[in-house]
Amino acid sequence: MRKLQWGMIGGGEGSQIGPAHRLGAGLDGLFEFTAGALDHRPEEGIGYGRSLGLGDRAYGSWQDMLAGEKAQDNPIDLVTVATPNSTHFEITKAFLEGGFHVLCEKPMTMTVEEGEEIVKIARTTGKICAVNYGYSGYSLVRHMKAMIARGDLGKIRLVNAEFAHGHHADAADAENPRVRWRYDPAQAGVSAQFADCGIHALHMASFVTGQDVTKLSADTVSCIDVRVLEDDAMVNFRMDGGAVGRLWTSSIAIGRQHGLGIQVFGEKGGLRWSQEHPNQLYYMPLGERLQIIERGEANLSPEADRTSRVTIGHAEGMPLAFANIYADLAEAIRARKENRSIDPAADLYPRAEDGLRSMAAVFAVAQSGKEDGLWCDARPPMFR
Amino acid sequence: MRKLQWGMIGGGEGSQIGPAHRLGAGLDGLFEFTAGALDHRPEEGIGYGRSLGLGDRAYGSWQDMLAGEKAQDNPIDLVTVATPNSTHFEITKAFLEGGFHVLCEKPMTMTVEEGEEIVKIARTTGKICAVNYGYSGYSLVRHMKAMIARGDLGKIRLVNAEFAHGHHADAADAENPRVRWRYDPAQAGVSAQFADCGIHALHMASFVTGQDVTKLSADTVSCIDVRVLEDDAMVNFRMDGGAVGRLWTSSIAIGRQHGLGIQVFGEKGGLRWSQEHPNQLYYMPLGERLQIIERGEANLSPEADRTSRVTIGHAEGMPLAFANIYADLAEAIRARKENRSIDPAADLYPRAEDGLRSMAAVFAVAQSGKEDGLWCDARPPMFR
Amino acid sequence: MRKLQWGMIGGGEGSQIGPAHRLGAGLDGLFEFTAGALDHRPEEGIGYGRSLGLGDRAYGSWQDMLAGEKAQDNPIDLVTVATPNSTHFEITKAFLEGGFHVLCEKPMTMTVEEGEEIVKIARTTGKICAVNYGYSGYSLVRHMKAMIARGDLGKIRLVNAEFAHGHHADAADAENPRVRWRYDPAQAGVSAQFADCGIHALHMASFVTGQDVTKLSADTVSCIDVRVLEDDAMVNFRMDGGAVGRLWTSSIAIGRQHGLGIQVFGEKGGLRWSQEHPNQLYYMPLGERLQIIERGEANLSPEADRTSRVTIGHAEGMPLAFANIYADLAEAIRARKENRSIDPAADLYPRAEDGLRSMAAVFAVAQSGKEDGLWCDARPPMFR
Amino acid sequence: MRKLQWGMIGGGEGSQIGPAHRLGAGLDGLFEFTAGALDHRPEEGIGYGRSLGLGDRAYGSWQDMLAGEKAQDNPIDLVTVATPNSTHFEITKAFLEGGFHVLCEKPMTMTVEEGEEIVKIARTTGKICAVNYGYSGYSLVRHMKAMIARGDLGKIRLVNAEFAHGHHADAADAENPRVRWRYDPAQAGVSAQFADCGIHALHMASFVTGQDVTKLSADTVSCIDVRVLEDDAMVNFRMDGGAVGRLWTSSIAIGRQHGLGIQVFGEKGGLRWSQEHPNQLYYMPLGERLQIIERGEANLSPEADRTSRVTIGHAEGMPLAFANIYADLAEAIRARKENRSIDPAADLYPRAEDGLRSMAAVFAVAQSGKEDGLWCDARPPMFR
Ligand SMILES: NC(=O)c1ccc[n+]([C@@H]2O[C@H](COP(=O)([O-])OP(=O)(O)OC[C@H]3O[C@@H](n4cnc5c(N)ncnc54)[C@H](O)[C@@H]3O)[C@@H](O)[C@H]2O)c1
Ligand SMILES: NC(=O)c1ccc[n+]([C@@H]2O[C@H](COP(=O)([O-])OP(=O)(O)OC[C@H]3O[C@@H](n4cnc5c(N)ncnc54)[C@H](O)[C@@H]3O)[C@@H](O)[C@H]2O)c1
Ligand SMILES: NC(=O)c1ccc[n+]([C@@H]2O[C@H](COP(=O)([O-])OP(=O)(O)OC[C@H]3O[C@@H](n4cnc5c(N)ncnc54)[C@H](O)[C@@H]3O)[C@@H](O)[C@H]2O)c1
Ligand SMILES: NC(=O)c1ccc[n+]([C@@H]2O[C@H](COP(=O)([O-])OP(=O)(O)OC[C@H]3O[C@@H](n4cnc5c(N)ncnc54)[C@H](O)[C@@H]3O)[C@@H](O)[C@H]2O)c1
Repeated sequence: MRKLQWGMIGGGEGSQIGPAHRLGAGLDGLFEFTAGALDHRPEEGIGYGRSLGLGDRAYGSWQDMLAGEKAQDNPIDLVTVATPNSTHFEITKAFLEGGFHVLCEKPMTMTVEEGEEIVKIARTTGKICAVNYGYSGYSLVRHMKAMIARGDLGKIRLVNAEFAHGHHADAADAENPRVRWRYDPAQAGVSAQFADCGIHALHMASFVTGQDVTKLSADTVSCIDVRVLEDDAMVNFRMDGGAVGRLWTSSIAIGRQHGLGIQVFGEKGGLRWSQEHPNQLYYMPLGERLQIIERGEANLSPEADRTSRVTIGHAEGMPLAFANIYADLAEAIRARKENRSIDPAADLYPRAEDGLRSMAAVFAVAQSGKEDGLWCDARPPMFR
Repeated sequence: MRKLQWGMIGGGEGSQIGPAHRLGAGLDGLFEFTAGALDHRPEEGIGYGRSLGLGDRAYGSWQDMLAGEKAQDNPIDLVTVATPNSTHFEITKAFLEGGFHVLCEKPMTMTVEEGEEIVKIARTTGKICAVNYGYSGYSLVRHMKAMIARGDLGKIRLVNAEFAHGHHADAADAENPRVRWRYDPAQAGVSAQFADCGIHALHMASFVTGQDVTKLSADTVSCIDVRVLEDDAMVNFRMDGGAVGRLWTSSIAIGRQHGLGIQVFGEKGGLRWSQEHPNQLYYMPLGERLQIIERGEANLSPEADRTSRVTIGHAEGMPLAFANIYADLAEAIRARKENRSIDPAADLYPRAEDGLRSMAAVFAVAQSGKEDGLWCDARPPMFR
Repeated sequence: MRKLQWGMIGGGEGSQIGPAHRLGAGLDGLFEFTAGALDHRPEEGIGYGRSLGLGDRAYGSWQDMLAGEKAQDNPIDLVTVATPNSTHFEITKAFLEGGFHVLCEKPMTMTVEEGEEIVKIARTTGKICAVNYGYSGYSLVRHMKAMIARGDLGKIRLVNAEFAHGHHADAADAENPRVRWRYDPAQAGVSAQFADCGIHALHMASFVTGQDVTKLSADTVSCIDVRVLEDDAMVNFRMDGGAVGRLWTSSIAIGRQHGLGIQVFGEKGGLRWSQEHPNQLYYMPLGERLQIIERGEANLSPEADRTSRVTIGHAEGMPLAFANIYADLAEAIRARKENRSIDPAADLYPRAEDGLRSMAAVFAVAQSGKEDGLWCDARPPMFR
Repeated sequence: MRKLQWGMIGGGEGSQIGPAHRLGAGLDGLFEFTAGALDHRPEEGIGYGRSLGLGDRAYGSWQDMLAGEKAQDNPIDLVTVATPNSTHFEITKAFLEGGFHVLCEKPMTMTVEEGEEIVKIARTTGKICAVNYGYSGYSLVRHMKAMIARGDLGKIRLVNAEFAHGHHADAADAENPRVRWRYDPAQAGVSAQFADCGIHALHMASFVTGQDVTKLSADTVSCIDVRVLEDDAMVNFRMDGGAVGRLWTSSIAIGRQHGLGIQVFGEKGGLRWSQEHPNQLYYMPLGERLQIIERGEANLSPEADRTSRVTIGHAEGMPLAFANIYADLAEAIRARKENRSIDPAADLYPRAEDGLRSMAAVFAVAQSGKEDGLWCDARPPMFR
């Protein structure tokens, strides 16, 4: 089976998320890293791309790359957009319109309007527009979704999600430019911690329950005075399948390292999972005992099996979760190439619609936070 | 040292909390169980009291007990009120006015007005009116309070408290009278889960931070349809020392057994503690590593040492936390008898003021819950 | 129900284990502390006894107490021997022969011969001679025993027990008299860490499996040079029901606080329990998932129910385990008084036979340790 | 930087360990999978190799591959031997002698004599002969080694290692050929569970302490009757730096999934690590508190930093540990090519000497097990 060809925009030398994408895309040998515009500085981007083996498909800008790849006989099959947030919209739009499948980093856009536009373009062009809610790639997250979908928990009553860490808790570090821009509306937009981390938790709530958020109420605070945007937020929400939601996100929670976790409670059982120990899933069927589901155990769902690589008892970590998103995409792309339907257990990568919904939630949180927790519609206009 | 004499109202045969009080009061040999009106059925109360060794100080009603003890040369030193909620006010009031020290079960009253009256009576009579927020008796909870008071965490930014369990999650059991009354406003008042469990978590937030709640916003829901009162609530609040608060309480969280826990985040560090594993306290000083404080370790605070009985590595549990409240009360009573000041490390039992504040919070939660999360004043009028 | 009368020898002011016995004996109100010879210094013993309310039944020596209690119309029902190890034999012997029920601290004697003599005296006199393997009082330890007895695990293949802590790891502290005597054969006998802690783990292995140790092989080492006796030992053993055993005990395991735990593996399942978190029991039925049994959950064994006091989710700790031993003894004593058979769920307190078996194991460990792990008979001669 | 070329022998379709090697070798993009003789059935091997992109460097046998690669202008830089145990010796020998660097799966050989021969050949040829003790690749295992090497724990007193799981506990499954051969001396050699899992734990004990095992005493048992070789073993050992060792390995420990873990105790501190949660390392400096070291935290050792890929709080799992071994090898190979010294933080891959020592330990365990725990020399003759 020939490898698919993969390109990346952003993820230059020293970038935070670039290496994780290269790990994830390359891990299963499904994609070959073929092209890239890796840096906002053309020379550095070309140089670094060449050092990674891209040859003359190391481009100085995404515009060059778009043109160059269009001109290729054998252009890339997928492009990942891993640049800073404000550029996602135009790059994603351009590549979709150029006929490419795209995996865009979160947040997909800076506004709801842009989000709607991307969704429309993806629909019109028929191209894949995925969004990197990478944590949804964990095998046991997939299994939670499968258990809930097949009814193991009955009707879902309540979801409680968290993404609360302590890495921006040092007031002495608040003016450090690496941290500061995140809390500055001019650079970060209407929300800081919720837009950065909260949307992962919110996406996960939707992903595992199969329900979309309809409205929300938020309490946002800046625990460090110099910050304009929030470093802690509590969001209550409602979902279209009737579930109630609670979501806490923080960057000042000293003592917590990562802090993404989810609890789901239904009529017939409860589930609990935490990103820091992703290979165990705590499950209690109503009236029975808490039991521990292990990644890789026999007789899990097809969705779990597909995303599990090594034998039970061996931890699989975050790079493999990312790889699972890439594996979904490889399957989606191949299915199209081969004109067949996709393996349903792979048809789970987050999409433009998810990216759009996150944006709508971000704006609703920002508004609600300003208006004393007013309940706001969290749906993008096009989905109301 | 002669034992103090102790009496109880409620806590009859088969009652839930009666045995824990007898354990707690008797455990250190500080109190002798001397008198009681243990049941709402006079004969049963007298019979059970006698079987517990009360002799002719086993009374048929609290009124008889009040009269009987007043007539004693050597009346009881403390009376615990462990009857159903709606009777707390009149019994507590009568005993305070009768010149007795009282430990009242939570909630102290059914209304804020009653709560204010109790506070006033306690102040006028000069009698001790304690309220049984028994979890505040745990040694490491005391240590959290001491650490925060002495500044180990710097200014407190945020408290996140939970009391979320799954013991009322079975819809098939919702009409069971043992469960049902709790969600019926006619019997339970304006709030169910928050009034039953939430106030423990809220008290703990105040207890450890030394700050009082000023205002709050609540999202209350009934996940099981037949219920009028809430079985799940999320409460955001603000405290008078500037801390932000978040509190989740639930009775439908299948898979969680008890679920009381607290996290406190300050400028200089974070703390995390959970009632189900009360002998460990997780502490991270800013910029250092997470470390585990063990109950009973050397060089903790006087408040922790005073409430620790067995050597490190041996679990101490909930009955010992209750016993710590009783030990505080014994010290308070003795200090008065001996006309000396109380050991400050013992002067920590929850008081009528705490009971009143809880009531105000209960009503604020109920109101906010009805009004879409409106921020409501959570202070009792007399403390505004 | 009149309380039983209880006396104590040893456990004077400042002693380590005295308070735990007073807590345990008093906790359920089954025993009244009536008499004592609490200190090796007569005056101090009498003074402290009086301060604890013993009046003129505070004695200056155990000999006086024996004489005094014999002379009472209403003598004590049970005496606890909590003096240093070397005195256990003569005191226990004297009180048994004097017609008293005895609870002796571990180790019951200093030699196997003495142990056999105690067993014989207990048998001849018909008096209860219990030995304080207090950890066997935990509710979930009782439940393990019940599960195994009723066959939930099938035939037991292997037991792995540990009691390894780090409290004697500081070489700089090794000459501290409080620590030093323990590793000095002149004072401690033939074994240090195994005799002090290992026998608790070994007793637990026997207690839960219902099997006795037949032979053993030990590797004993002194990690701190100045020590003659072992501070770390690994013991392999065999049991009379066919189980294989492994036991590690250490006092130099820095980072471990207490370290008593047990794992049992049978044909049909496995169990795991740890003293530091005694309210959870990990159970895996063959071919199923690991599940968590909670102390206090519904439908456990009668043995577990009898030893559980507060509702599920609230920790019960070590003082309550001790109290369970006392509750067993109260039931045993009452059953005799009332001429009825004992509640089988209470008939579980450790006995002189267990104390004797421990002694035989201690000597076997010492011998095997000296002879390069030679397999030695671990049974006392009278049980061979 | 051009990728190194990598080949594999064994690891055919459906094999257990093959995929983990391909993941590990490919993950960082350091190696390109170029050649292979993947199956003992030539056609299947060639077919599968081609499907993985090997083209005409997919060989029908390792002999063909050896010849073929020797004839290449640009032969493979490294070959992994992942065939069944009994073939490791001849294949490894042949490739070393053919001038190739080899990574051999464990156990490296079936006998000590073969092991010595491999060591000699590796020394003579100057080729790298690594052995895949892959768990030594975990970042925090590397950090343990670094901490101990730099003296954080002082002199090491004791190591306690375990590799005890429950995957062969089902007696009904014991005759299943997939399980059975492992306990059959004709196929598995002198040892089953120790040779399969125990040597990982023993290697880790040596790896982190930097000490070699000198002698040992073993208690080996077959808990399931039909088995000739052991399914459970306890091994006591001594190390050349003075450390005492204890090692438990089992395949009948129902309820344990993987069960590799290690505890190290020195004069100045203790460490604890477990393979199932590899991103946390528990460390207690003498006299201080237990603290949690997180993979990826700032200011760890160079050895830890080199083997850490994603940010703190994100789990890294077993495939990344394998990848770290491959990264070491890539660095070792490149350093040779570039005629420079190797990065010391990479010079940590297990070697032929380690493989040989394991073999000597396997035979010592088998002998000691047969002779009632006789202490046996655990060193290969050439290292005595
Ligand atoms: N899914 C996740 O879990 C996750 C985690 C971290 C970051 N992210 C997202 O990934 C994105 C990148 O974040 P990061 O932390 O790696 O940022 P970074 O600042 O570390 O790296 C950004 C990279 O993009 C390059 N770049 C900038 N503009 C470019 C342009 N116009 N053309 C080409 N390259 C350009 C920069 O040179 C740099 O190499 C962000 O949108 C962020 O939200 C997602
Ligand atoms: N602090 C805690 O953690 C905690 C835990 C559980 C219950 N509680 C509180 O304790 C109180 C009692 O709860 P419970 O669960 O034990 O209730 P319960 O219904 O189990 O027992 C109540 C007892 O009070 C007796 N009683 C009722 N009316 C009486 C009267 N007028 N005079 C004398 N006795 C009377 C009843 O006969 C019964 O024995 C409640 O207020 C509850 O909120 C507190
Ligand atoms: N079961 C357990 O878990 C456990 C735990 C700790 C100690 N112990 C055992 O308890 C016993 C006491 O240990 P400790 O640590 O409390 O010792 P300790 O030295 O702290 O106290 C011993 C007490 O006995 C008194 N005493 C000594 N000789 C006496 C005599 N002849 N008559 C009356 N009193 C006398 C002393 O004055 C002192 O008050 C030991 O046998 C020990 O092994 C058991
Ligand atoms: N390091 C570890 O953690 C670890 C874990 C599992 C297995 N292993 C080791 O890996 C090795 C393989 O184990 P496995 O479980 O993958 O075995 P397996 O039986 O699943 O696979 C063995 C593979 O080798 C192929 N093979 C056999 N003989 C061959 C030959 N002569 N030439 C080419 N290919 C041949 C087979 O066709 C098969 O594809 C063993 O030595 C085992 O001990 C190590």
